[in-house]
Amino acid sequence: MTPPVSESLKKYSVSIIGASGYSGAELTRLLLRHPLVELKELYAFSQVGNRVSDLYPALDCEKLYRQYSGETESDIYFLALPHGEALQLVPSLVQAGKIVIDLSGDFRLKNSDEHKEFYNQVKAPEAFMTYGMPELFHDEIIREKAISNPGCYASSIILGVAPFFRGTESSIKVRTINCTSTSGISGAGRSSKTELSFSEMSENIRAYKVGVHQHIPEIMQALGTSATNPSFDFTFTPMIGSLVRGIYSILNVQLETPVEEAQIVELYRNFYKNAPFVRVRDTMTEIKHVVYTNFCDIHIARVTGSGSLLLVTALDNLLKGAAGQAVQNMNLMLALDERTGLI
Amino acid sequence: MTPPVSESLKKYSVSIIGASGYSGAELTRLLLRHPLVELKELYAFSQVGNRVSDLYPALDCEKLYRQYSGETESDIYFLALPHGEALQLVPSLVQAGKIVIDLSGDFRLKNSDEHKEFYNQVKAPEAFMTYGMPELFHDEIIREKAISNPGCYASSIILGVAPFFRGTESSIKVRTINCTSTSGISGAGRSSKTELSFSEMSENIRAYKVGVHQHIPEIMQALGTSATNPSFDFTFTPMIGSLVRGIYSILNVQLETPVEEAQIVELYRNFYKNAPFVRVRDTMTEIKHVVYTNFCDIHIARVTGSGSLLLVTALDNLLKGAAGQAVQNMNLMLALDERTGLI
Amino acid sequence: MTPPVSESLKKYSVSIIGASGYSGAELTRLLLRHPLVELKELYAFSQVGNRVSDLYPALDCEKLYRQYSGETESDIYFLALPHGEALQLVPSLVQAGKIVIDLSGDFRLKNSDEHKEFYNQVKAPEAFMTYGMPELFHDEIIREKAISNPGCYASSIILGVAPFFRGTESSIKVRTINCTSTSGISGAGRSSKTELSFSEMSENIRAYKVGVHQHIPEIMQALGTSATNPSFDFTFTPMIGSLVRGIYSILNVQLETPVEEAQIVELYRNFYKNAPFVRVRDTMTEIKHVVYTNFCDIHIARVTGSGSLLLVTALDNLLKGAAGQAVQNMNLMLALDERTGLI
Amino acid sequence: MTPPVSESLKKYSVSIIGASGYSGAELTRLLLRHPLVELKELYAFSQVGNRVSDLYPALDCEKLYRQYSGETESDIYFLALPHGEALQLVPSLVQAGKIVIDLSGDFRLKNSDEHKEFYNQVKAPEAFMTYGMPELFHDEIIREKAISNPGCYASSIILGVAPFFRGTESSIKVRTINCTSTSGISGAGRSSKTELSFSEMSENIRAYKVGVHQHIPEIMQALGTSATNPSFDFTFTPMIGSLVRGIYSILNVQLETPVEEAQIVELYRNFYKNAPFVRVRDTMTEIKHVVYTNFCDIHIARVTGSGSLLLVTALDNLLKGAAGQAVQNMNLMLALDERTGLI
Repeated sequence: MTPPVSESLKKYSVSIIGASGYSGAELTRLLLRHPLVELKELYAFSQVGNRVSDLYPALDCEKLYRQYSGETESDIYFLALPHGEALQLVPSLVQAGKIVIDLSGDFRLKNSDEHKEFYNQVKAPEAFMTYGMPELFHDEIIREKAISNPGCYASSIILGVAPFFRGTESSIKVRTINCTSTSGISGAGRSSKTELSFSEMSENIRAYKVGVHQHIPEIMQALGTSATNPSFDFTFTPMIGSLVRGIYSILNVQLETPVEEAQIVELYRNFYKNAPFVRVRDTMTEIKHVVYTNFCDIHIARVTGSGSLLLVTALDNLLKGAAGQAVQNMNLMLALDERTGLI
Repeated sequence: MTPPVSESLKKYSVSIIGASGYSGAELTRLLLRHPLVELKELYAFSQVGNRVSDLYPALDCEKLYRQYSGETESDIYFLALPHGEALQLVPSLVQAGKIVIDLSGDFRLKNSDEHKEFYNQVKAPEAFMTYGMPELFHDEIIREKAISNPGCYASSIILGVAPFFRGTESSIKVRTINCTSTSGISGAGRSSKTELSFSEMSENIRAYKVGVHQHIPEIMQALGTSATNPSFDFTFTPMIGSLVRGIYSILNVQLETPVEEAQIVELYRNFYKNAPFVRVRDTMTEIKHVVYTNFCDIHIARVTGSGSLLLVTALDNLLKGAAGQAVQNMNLMLALDERTGLI
Repeated sequence: MTPPVSESLKKYSVSIIGASGYSGAELTRLLLRHPLVELKELYAFSQVGNRVSDLYPALDCEKLYRQYSGETESDIYFLALPHGEALQLVPSLVQAGKIVIDLSGDFRLKNSDEHKEFYNQVKAPEAFMTYGMPELFHDEIIREKAISNPGCYASSIILGVAPFFRGTESSIKVRTINCTSTSGISGAGRSSKTELSFSEMSENIRAYKVGVHQHIPEIMQALGTSATNPSFDFTFTPMIGSLVRGIYSILNVQLETPVEEAQIVELYRNFYKNAPFVRVRDTMTEIKHVVYTNFCDIHIARVTGSGSLLLVTALDNLLKGAAGQAVQNMNLMLALDERTGLI
Repeated sequence: MTPPVSESLKKYSVSIIGASGYSGAELTRLLLRHPLVELKELYAFSQVGNRVSDLYPALDCEKLYRQYSGETESDIYFLALPHGEALQLVPSLVQAGKIVIDLSGDFRLKNSDEHKEFYNQVKAPEAFMTYGMPELFHDEIIREKAISNPGCYASSIILGVAPFFRGTESSIKVRTINCTSTSGISGAGRSSKTELSFSEMSENIRAYKVGVHQHIPEIMQALGTSATNPSFDFTFTPMIGSLVRGIYSILNVQLETPVEEAQIVELYRNFYKNAPFVRVRDTMTEIKHVVYTNFCDIHIARVTGSGSLLLVTALDNLLKGAAGQAVQNMNLMLALDERTGLI
């Protein structure tokens, strides 16, 4: 039930374009119970005319999916579309003065060559939108009307190492990051591919896109460097495992010079002291600790005398890795407490 | 985040005895975000001194589990204890005038012989408490200060057939109900049994307690008859499957005389027309439609000309089958909208 | 254990038509290590030109899938095709004098009206082939050159109640059988349907085709009656659960008159005393007890004084429910020990 | 395929000490169908008097678990005991001239300080036994009567990088290996720990023993160096995931100088050209490709111009990681084809 709020309070109207995928469904769930917005339209190309409750009975929502034809009646638009499809839609929404939160990768990269390479496209978008990671770009986000919401793997990796790159401890230099991440299969979207069927993926693990995943350039960009000309060695191996939700990232970090464990823990705690959704935990993190929440948990599992670190992060790919972070961004853009509707 | 409520609003104080099991953890989650109560103490015998967030990091709660020693400071007490352990504690809480919601089977049965038989006990409780199934006993619940919360299987079965027994269509008579239910393994509690380990239960199914499960007498009692002297043939086969949450019940019902499908659908829709958490659905229900919700879904899958019916119900064993229904009952006992904090 | 075989022994040549699905893959695995046959050709329409090891690396087989164009060089042909596709192929193979084992439902039913109804077809096959359930039709199978291999659900249900219908205890009469079966998702074949994706089916259960499943008529036929004019009430509710392999059937049987449990156990043990792949077990059976084996386990879980029985059966849908039983049939048709290559 | 064997052939007698755990059960399964051995006694301390078929009905074996009291009647003894328990038993079996294959870590390490450190023991064994990895130590194994069978993680990691260390391409030098491995939960044994229950581990992932796992020293030893004084940087992060069987290892290797991909593929193919159970595959490997087989699959997923490699290996922790490799070793020690009974 929507929490009791003073009736007189004006609510922002919000619509979702691409509402029938898994990220769209999570957005629907979050926005239906958000106390300060009113969910208006759910646009979804392949499901036009169906009810939300037909596809997602757990959401208990009788709205119909509609065809999007350029409407701009709502105050806020979330786009949860396959990569490439937001390119056409975002500019007119921005021009109409709407608040726009795009969950695709279409406007995440400043470097158009990297965009073309990693998204296999001949043409890159002309614009870049502020990268909506509140723990890193809070001050930019609160001033923007349109942002790019980060990728799921990218969120789990950037948050895991950001204190070394964006913290004030400029004396700590990273030489190498080797990252392996296991994602829940919902990250592949609502899919009918044989290789994602239950019979194929139950009790299975499969790595893919080794070294070429499209989240690599946004990770490097957020850490202040680039995939093309990196300031440190970075390898990334994504895997899907036998789970629906969650991303579990193992980050092997080699520093230029050794740093005491206590100093690193202090650096992390300090860096995230105002971040309500990042928890630096003393004990090993697990997928189970974060699914169905907007938390990203970080555990500093090992610090050796030679400057080798082992960090583990966990988040829910559909929440902190997508819809939850998107709502967190919306809250910031509306000057609300960023936790509103998320705890 | 607790929804914004007027500061001046007095909140009820609530404590949980037996807070560290799975039902206790779900109660904790629900009560932490309930807008009109304040969660005070979490009592848990085996976890005294540990934090909630040590056991259940997803709850993000820094409270400590404490030893219960007869405290009565809260307005409301939930008991989520193993069967038998509430027997001692409930009377003094009732005497102190507290609102008491007991999730165990200790006070569910009127017939003490059945209690002794199905719970394998030499002694039965002297008292019976109103059976907290809001869809059947709403008028009793709102007048009570202490109730018994129904069992998980019992909820999924009673709700599936109640319209035949408690509806106004007195002309429809049930001859036989054969029920098979598959439960998520969380129903067995937070357990260290080898036979409930992941390696044993992944991709497995196991029936157990065939015909002797302790929920049988409460089902019969709620349907207006008794396990000892039943007015219809009832068989019940519980199973655990390869899932954590949810109960899926297949109800084969044989009526004394055939009834048209339309009449049965009408009977069900009418019976549940004021029940916000029971959904009579036109299409097949699934576990996925109800987990992490307080809904019980019912689908009338087949009605034959000979009076044979096939009904399918689904609910989340930890929510509508335990903690969710308990909070729904609390809402009714506090004269609140029964949906408060549950949607 | 594979039986001892002398080098000089001539091996039968065998080919599979429809080799790339899950049943075809299990046939491939079994026939590759069968000591008395040599696997020749693997025909598979959608995978022509691919290697077995591309699709099923665990099989470690470098053969190529080929297009079937009427070849009859092998001694034995297994057909593991979607329903309807064997209709054209079987007659010419039979005419060529081949041993033919068809895993589809195309030739299972004597009653062509039932075939048309339950398989949704306008035309039924003109011929019926002996039903290849060795425990019931051993004497017919050993004399045949072409047989129909039973359906997976059908195997789990027929074996569970056959002693009442085909045993010598003619005094025991069955009034009602209510059956609910949970199948592994591999039963739906190698599929790209969204509703069978990992994200949809993990920790889920879904009933389907309630009362209309195409295995109903073959069950009734094998029990000596018919779906059209049944000698007892039969309801069947198939479900898919969160597992890849296995079928678990709960059989609620109501007898006309009560029978002692000891007599029933004796009846079952006696009926299956020469059946190496049916185990009547004293303790509860589980899916885990039978997957990757050709066993069908049966447990008589409850016998009441009123003649109500609860039987539980378990088998591997791809082995005793498909490829394993097919090889068992081949062994019988070749006058070999029926266990050859299966233990 | 089981090799052909004549009836007159004398079979070796074999017994298992510690037969009731998961590795013991897999040994039982393999040895029951091995054509050249006869399984005699199954010793299991906690299950004395129970039948194999009580614990593992799928094995269909009516033998009783017995108490071990120093018997030496069999030709061959497998020990599948918890670490520390083989220390007492192996010496007398060796002295009695038996063939001994120990699956524990008790006799794997030459360096007793490392044994004490990584196994948390005050005392290390006085003896070391040949490390039974056939692909590396074939010539030693065939001459031995007692060997140590490798650990499951160790097998998946050593086989993944051995060509760099034990191959003839002495010009390739490894600078760093960062390894993350996900294991099936059966690796933890037949367990009653709450943290390994289905409810805790379904759809979960958990890293543990980061940098301190007891397989680290045997990996380093097999690669010709030591954990204490390593010739390259090595980090190892083991995880358990939501699967019963299998180990999936991601190996980030940094070479001292870049090497062409073709040269590396050639090195691997050459190194394993006589290894029937190691497959160097062109396409991505998956857990599903190897479970229920004795294969270890290796895929060279990425080779960069800067000498950074990404290798992926997969094996079944209970087979190539334990019981399968043990039988492979037995075959070699008996001068049999190493594949006997394993394909």
